[in-house]
Amino acid sequence: MTDTKTTFITPEVLLEHWEGHRRLTRRVIDAFPEDQLFTFTPAPPMRSFGVLMLEIIGMVAPTLGGLSTGLWEQPDWAGIAKQAEPTKAELLALWDETSTVLHDRWPKIPEARFHEVHTAFGQWTMPGADLVLYLVDNEIHHRAQGYVYLRLLGIEPPPFYER
Amino acid sequence: MTDTKTTFITPEVLLEHWEGHRRLTRRVIDAFPEDQLFTFTPAPPMRSFGVLMLEIIGMVAPTLGGLSTGLWEQPDWAGIAKQAEPTKAELLALWDETSTVLHDRWPKIPEARFHEVHTAFGQWTMPGADLVLYLVDNEIHHRAQGYVYLRLLGIEPPPFYER
Repeated sequence: MTDTKTTFITPEVLLEHWEGHRRLTRRVIDAFPEDQLFTFTPAPPMRSFGVLMLEIIGMVAPTLGGLSTGLWEQPDWAGIAKQAEPTKAELLALWDETSTVLHDRWPKIPEARFHEVHTAFGQWTMPGADLVLYLVDNEIHHRAQGYVYLRLLGIEPPPFYER
Repeated sequence: MTDTKTTFITPEVLLEHWEGHRRLTRRVIDAFPEDQLFTFTPAPPMRSFGVLMLEIIGMVAPTLGGLSTGLWEQPDWAGIAKQAEPTKAELLALWDETSTVLHDRWPKIPEARFHEVHTAFGQWTMPGADLVLYLVDNEIHHRAQGYVYLRLLGIEPPPFYER
């Protein structure tokens, strides 16, 4: 059992923290030239920044759904992989839709779900909080790779510390 | 005031989470060829992976010290910048020393410090928990840049999900 008597951060603080990261990631997407977002792959087999961002977008709603209901539906990975490449404006719109889903659903997740162990998507067994941290960390991880891509393209990325 | 009645994660869980990241970052350092660690700079003005890791190492103990005592001593940035380049073995030894400092000092930080607002190093004013999250996020950020560097060098990085 997780000791819930002490608090490092509350669910409210995690949401603010995550939303700050999402605002920065949105600026990184927006910094990419439209024609490089899905084509620039300087370090194969690493994927383009656009594809990495579709991965991030695709994980948020199913994870929030699983945490809210206890039902872990598999994201439609094949569908995501097959979908037509969005334009930059469409990708930013998908990003914003996901941000709305996060903002609306997060406060409805009962605190106990963060401490219970879930098996997410049939493969990842860990407490709910760790599943959430994985999503945030994965976003930071792929966004940072976008920083290198931008620098390789001669573009200055937005400051890391501004959220 | 931060609401500390609900818990997303406890200080103990944050430590486990951070230490998992530190084990992965250590493997990324170790994956670099010795002769590329401080010389490979594919995306100027981005720094070498070795220099990025010295930045990470240099922030941990002063932040833990500030959180423990409320005294925020300035890290010796000029000294860090001027120090002789360590070998890979020396960098890994510095990494391990820092991990020991983290493991020993963390449990002694009173919970209230994470919720109090600090001004760290004369410039960053935020709750203690946010200062800690900044360190973890900054480590993930720079490590992910190391993933791209390794791929550009033709080296497969360690899996992100293994901690």
